[in-house]
Amino acid sequence: MKDQHVLYQHSTLATLVPGLLKGTLTMKELLQHGDTGIGTGEGLDGELIILDGQPYQVRSTGEVNLVAADFKLPFANAHFAHFEPLMTVKNLTGVQLEKRVFAATHYQNIFFALKVSGHFKQIKTRAVAKSEPPYPTLLATAQAQQVFNADGIAGTLISYYAPQLFNGVAVGGYHSHFLAANHDFGGHVLNYTVDSADVQIQAFTSLEQHFPVDDPDFMAHDFAADNIADDIEQSEK
Amino acid sequence: MKDQHVLYQHSTLATLVPGLLKGTLTMKELLQHGDTGIGTGEGLDGELIILDGQPYQVRSTGEVNLVAADFKLPFANAHFAHFEPLMTVKNLTGVQLEKRVFAATHYQNIFFALKVSGHFKQIKTRAVAKSEPPYPTLLATAQAQQVFNADGIAGTLISYYAPQLFNGVAVGGYHSHFLAANHDFGGHVLNYTVDSADVQIQAFTSLEQHFPVDDPDFMAHDFAADNIADDIEQSEK
Repeated sequence: MKDQHVLYQHSTLATLVPGLLKGTLTMKELLQHGDTGIGTGEGLDGELIILDGQPYQVRSTGEVNLVAADFKLPFANAHFAHFEPLMTVKNLTGVQLEKRVFAATHYQNIFFALKVSGHFKQIKTRAVAKSEPPYPTLLATAQAQQVFNADGIAGTLISYYAPQLFNGVAVGGYHSHFLAANHDFGGHVLNYTVDSADVQIQAFTSLEQHFPVDDPDFMAHDFAADNIADDIEQSEK
Repeated sequence: MKDQHVLYQHSTLATLVPGLLKGTLTMKELLQHGDTGIGTGEGLDGELIILDGQPYQVRSTGEVNLVAADFKLPFANAHFAHFEPLMTVKNLTGVQLEKRVFAATHYQNIFFALKVSGHFKQIKTRAVAKSEPPYPTLLATAQAQQVFNADGIAGTLISYYAPQLFNGVAVGGYHSHFLAANHDFGGHVLNYTVDSADVQIQAFTSLEQHFPVDDPDFMAHDFAADNIADDIEQSEK
């Protein structure tokens, strides 16, 4: 069943905050829920992006490689692509582009995906280095990251927007990953400026929020003491 | 498709907070997602409980009636029942029962449902009176409620538990509705003491969170100024 109105999410971002970074879903399982998506590997092993059913990993070394079916993920989003053209943009920062999306739609209270394909004047990304157990917190792990800059690069950005009410469940606002057209650059997007790109959008009527119920660490954890919103703010944005 | 591991939710509790109380789903549509559930009608028209596929409404007059297929709801939960026996309890308050559930399970981080069937020493419920447009806020509407007490009554309580991370999306913690065995008493449960009852439980691996995307008022609303957590605390607990 390929329901193009549903965004699938495995686990919650809050689960990562105290360092519950064990992989609880395989890439094979994730691909049953979509041909497009983003996520991370066990121990925050790089930044993942799925385009046209092909899952890519950007490692903290900057290398980009395809991901195997048994690769495990602690957190991911996926959906079946059915994007619709929204606008063509030129000479625009990411922040400006996001504002234009809200000027053109009324999607601020629902989940939706953006696909921005074209040429980027500049893009700054990061990729986290994999931690080993016992895992440190999200914040500590996210600080072990490499930042990458590219100027004048062709590629595709996939972004999921979550309403602010869902901050902690997901990243409230936009959460974007990038892959260069020639597959030699990518990562979790920190900021960018479009040279010229097509912006497509896909709105979701439902979020399918799946929990890692087979992970005893997740099931037993007391999240009450975790500083979820602040740690997400510092780790993801 | 009857997936007994999925809890369906239409809209979010946060949507009710500023008074977005228009019915955005019919009971017929809700019953496609479950034979068991709770909810409210347009304008907070009473307290609903679905048992064995039969939807009942407890009105602010205290009357209990069956709900028609075209009855509209602004907020509801439903699932297909596959409860498992958890324990038999005697002489226990609701608060004590809820603690025993967590002593017996590790479900504090996932959504689950409880079904408590038996004899109740005492139960205190409320039912909200329907508001008409322009709708007041959830807090103002919830204050237009009738409180009911019963002593020595047989019946069934359906409760949905949501992890605290989802407070605002749903009611963080337990959200319980009751129906007497003879269908002459019920409502949103404020407190109770069990005389003797069977407690059954059903854990969910996923939440299917559905948004009222066809309601322009929901789509356009700016939730930033709404005092969601406080108003839910005062309205629902």
